[in-house]
Amino acid sequence: MTPYPVVAPKRREEIVDATVRLLARDGLPSLTMKALAKEAGLPQGSLHYFFSNKGAIIEAAVDRVMRALHQRVALKTGDAQDPRRRLRAIIEACIGTAEEQGEFWTILVQFWSAMLYDAKLRSTNAALYVSLRRLIGRIVRAGIQSGEFRSVTPEGAGAVILALVDGLSLQRSFDPKALSFHDAVRLCEIAVFRFLAPERTRRSSSRGGRGDNPR
Amino acid sequence: MTPYPVVAPKRREEIVDATVRLLARDGLPSLTMKALAKEAGLPQGSLHYFFSNKGAIIEAAVDRVMRALHQRVALKTGDAQDPRRRLRAIIEACIGTAEEQGEFWTILVQFWSAMLYDAKLRSTNAALYVSLRRLIGRIVRAGIQSGEFRSVTPEGAGAVILALVDGLSLQRSFDPKALSFHDAVRLCEIAVFRFLAPERTRRSSSRGGRGDNPR
Repeated sequence: MTPYPVVAPKRREEIVDATVRLLARDGLPSLTMKALAKEAGLPQGSLHYFFSNKGAIIEAAVDRVMRALHQRVALKTGDAQDPRRRLRAIIEACIGTAEEQGEFWTILVQFWSAMLYDAKLRSTNAALYVSLRRLIGRIVRAGIQSGEFRSVTPEGAGAVILALVDGLSLQRSFDPKALSFHDAVRLCEIAVFRFLAPERTRRSSSRGGRGDNPR
Repeated sequence: MTPYPVVAPKRREEIVDATVRLLARDGLPSLTMKALAKEAGLPQGSLHYFFSNKGAIIEAAVDRVMRALHQRVALKTGDAQDPRRRLRAIIEACIGTAEEQGEFWTILVQFWSAMLYDAKLRSTNAALYVSLRRLIGRIVRAGIQSGEFRSVTPEGAGAVILALVDGLSLQRSFDPKALSFHDAVRLCEIAVFRFLAPERTRRSSSRGGRGDNPR
C-alpha cells in the first residue's frame, strides 16, 4: 500500500509525465529507475510506492499515449455519425499524432522495437491493436450496413487502415520531405476508401480469382 | 588500410553475420564492439581494421538485410514482366521476410526505433525507402503505361504499398494469431490492387471532391 494515499494519483501522473519526457528524449534503453526518479524530481526509492516495477510504468505511459490519441480522434470526429467522416477523423488523428505530438509517436515506435524482446510488452501491444481494430471495425460495420462500404470483414479493414497510418507515419518520420503530412493523409484516405468502395461501382474487383474477404 | 588484404572481405562478411545474429538475438542496445568481437570470435581491437566504427557495421548489416530482401523478390518474381505479378511477388517477399527471416525483420524494426535518436541512421533509412519506392514506382509506371493501373504518381503508390507491407507485418509480429500470413498477404493485395484499379472500372473514385494524385 502506498504511504501517500492522498497525493498518490497526482504523483503517479507526474511519474508518467516524466516517463513520457524521458522516453521521447532519450529512448527506452535510457529508462532506468534512477534516471526516471531524477526526471520526476523524486527520491529513487519512492518510485516503488507508486509502481510495482518498470513494466508497470511503461504500461502507464502507453496508456497515456493511447488516451491522448483517443482524445484527438474524439475532437476530430465531434458528433459526426457518417462512417466516412469518422474514418477520415481517425486517419487525420493518427497521422497527425506522429506530426504534432512527436513524443507520443516516438514512444509507440520504441515499443514496436522493445516488444520483440519482451513478451509482456508484446501482449500490451497486441491488446492495443485489437482494441483499435475493433474501434475501426465498428465504424466500418456501420458503413456496410448503410450500403456505403462493400461487405468486408470489419477487423480486416481495421488491420488495413492501421497498417496504412502506421506505415505512412513511419516513412514520414525518417523522411518528412519525401512525403508531406497532407500527401500522407490523402494517399491514406484514397487507399482506404478504394478498399471499402462498394462492389457495384467496380467491374473487376476479384481479378486473379481470389476471394476478397479473408477475415 | 587493412593489414589483411586477402582475408578482409571474408572477415567483413563474418563480422556482418555476427552483427545480424547479435542484433536479432539481443537488440541494438546490446551491440557493443566488445559483444560483437566475442560473437564474431575475433579480438576486440581487430574490428577496427574492417569497419571504421559501429555506424559502419550497422550500415553493412542493413545492406545485408536489404540484399536478402531483393533476392527474395527476384526469386519470387522470376522472369515475370506482368506488373501485377511483380507487385504480388514484392508483397509476398516483404511480408514473407517478417515471417521466415525473423532476424531481418527484427533488425529493420530496431532501426525504425534507433533512427529516432540518430540522424545518420535516419538518412540510411530514408535512402533505403527512396530506393524501394522507386523500385515499386517503376513497376507501377509499367502498369499505367499498359493501361492495367490508373494514373497515379508511381512513388505515391510505392509509399502506399510499403506502408501496407510494413504495417501488416508489424501487426503480425506482436499478434500472429490475430492476422495469419495468408490473410495479411491477401488484405495487402486487395488494398493495393483496388488502389491501382483503373478509373473506368469505378463510378465514384473522387468522392469528397478531392484530387486523387497528390504526388
